Amino acid sequence: MEIDFSTIKVIGFDADDTLWVNETYFRDAEEHFATLLEDYETKNKIDQELFKMEIKNLGLYGYGIKGFVLSMIESALELSNNEVSQATLLELLNLGKNMIDHPVEILDGVKEVLKGLNGKYRLIVLTKGDLLDQERKLEKSGLSVYFHHVEVLSDKKEKNYQDLLDHLEIPVNEFLMIGNSLKSDVLPLVNIGAKAVHIPFHTTWQHEEVEEPKEKNGYITVGKLTDVLDFL
Amino acid sequence: MEIDFSTIKVIGFDADDTLWVNETYFRDAEEHFATLLEDYETKNKIDQELFKMEIKNLGLYGYGIKGFVLSMIESALELSNNEVSQATLLELLNLGKNMIDHPVEILDGVKEVLKGLNGKYRLIVLTKGDLLDQERKLEKSGLSVYFHHVEVLSDKKEKNYQDLLDHLEIPVNEFLMIGNSLKSDVLPLVNIGAKAVHIPFHTTWQHEEVEEPKEKNGYITVGKLTDVLDFL
Repeated sequence: MEIDFSTIKVIGFDADDTLWVNETYFRDAEEHFATLLEDYETKNKIDQELFKMEIKNLGLYGYGIKGFVLSMIESALELSNNEVSQATLLELLNLGKNMIDHPVEILDGVKEVLKGLNGKYRLIVLTKGDLLDQERKLEKSGLSVYFHHVEVLSDKKEKNYQDLLDHLEIPVNEFLMIGNSLKSDVLPLVNIGAKAVHIPFHTTWQHEEVEEPKEKNGYITVGKLTDVLDFL
Repeated sequence: MEIDFSTIKVIGFDADDTLWVNETYFRDAEEHFATLLEDYETKNKIDQELFKMEIKNLGLYGYGIKGFVLSMIESALELSNNEVSQATLLELLNLGKNMIDHPVEILDGVKEVLKGLNGKYRLIVLTKGDLLDQERKLEKSGLSVYFHHVEVLSDKKEKNYQDLLDHLEIPVNEFLMIGNSLKSDVLPLVNIGAKAVHIPFHTTWQHEEVEEPKEKNGYITVGKLTDVLDFL
């Protein structure tokens, strides 16, 4: 299906795994977590239990590294029947600090695309991580010059996007979202009548996985970010 | 000094300790923390060390309950030389969850004032807590109907406010901020040419304390929120 991008005036960019690497560091932290707790359970069981704990706490903690660290600590206590050492718990705190403080690794083609779109569209960073983390990453990345501002959503469901477009007074047909998550960056947008470009990242958090619709309506999937310069 | 409020079109409301009680719950949590660690140090020392830990971690964690809980855990490990029990650490996690899940206690006069200002001004919630927490509190409070939207800032310094007014395209002379913190809700605003109303709350976090300027320029202090209806 052909999509008409001629009405687009504002483009929202997802940040994590669209502008820069993110999920990879969570996977590394999960590996580290499993190693620290290998005396108590199999790696497979540890992975499963940590994921369950994250999902259980998601409503309270929301997305981002701090909630992830709190869930790691709780999961470590539970998996070990409160026997995990204090030194290991301290290591989990430091693991989280290192994640927050990690250098930013910008993905291929991001600068080229932002330069190409700059001036033609109003560009916004649109993320559901932690505001401070995302601002820091944007600052470190040197990409902030291309963006009008950063918006953090507590979740990326239809209502969150609709509320945002309402308060920014952006008509739905003028908005395009670009991101790696079909569930969070693509489907909610097309469901409210906006458009989206899906750029899969090689790693997807289990919680973000969703089945591809049989018919693509309102969005296209491209292999690499620079492909958007062919039609924007 | 008389202040001319006739140019004001948009009002930003601080949330914690302006719309609803907040600091009180942090104080209660600190009391609880000191009790849990009383085997290791005096209450006074525990209070001081927790505060130091929070300030040390503020740059990484930012404001909000999750960072506070992470700092409590780190402080408990440090104060006890890693001897604090795993059960106590689990209790700190639960203390944090109870804070997040606490019922919202709306402050006196808030509804009356919001009703009075509704329609005459565009009202925005402007906070530096955690976005999810603040959205949840707004939802629980039943006050969301009065607000255009919620803005969370990673900090409340002059640059944060200036960036926000820029991206919302609000001229500085049309903006008024109402809040309990002289340091965060008042002085940065008047320094960039906006106006502010200061409503002290009975409890102020040590980190928010600042000396009152000799001359009040661009802001007034009122004893209770409903006083603003006299001039707005």
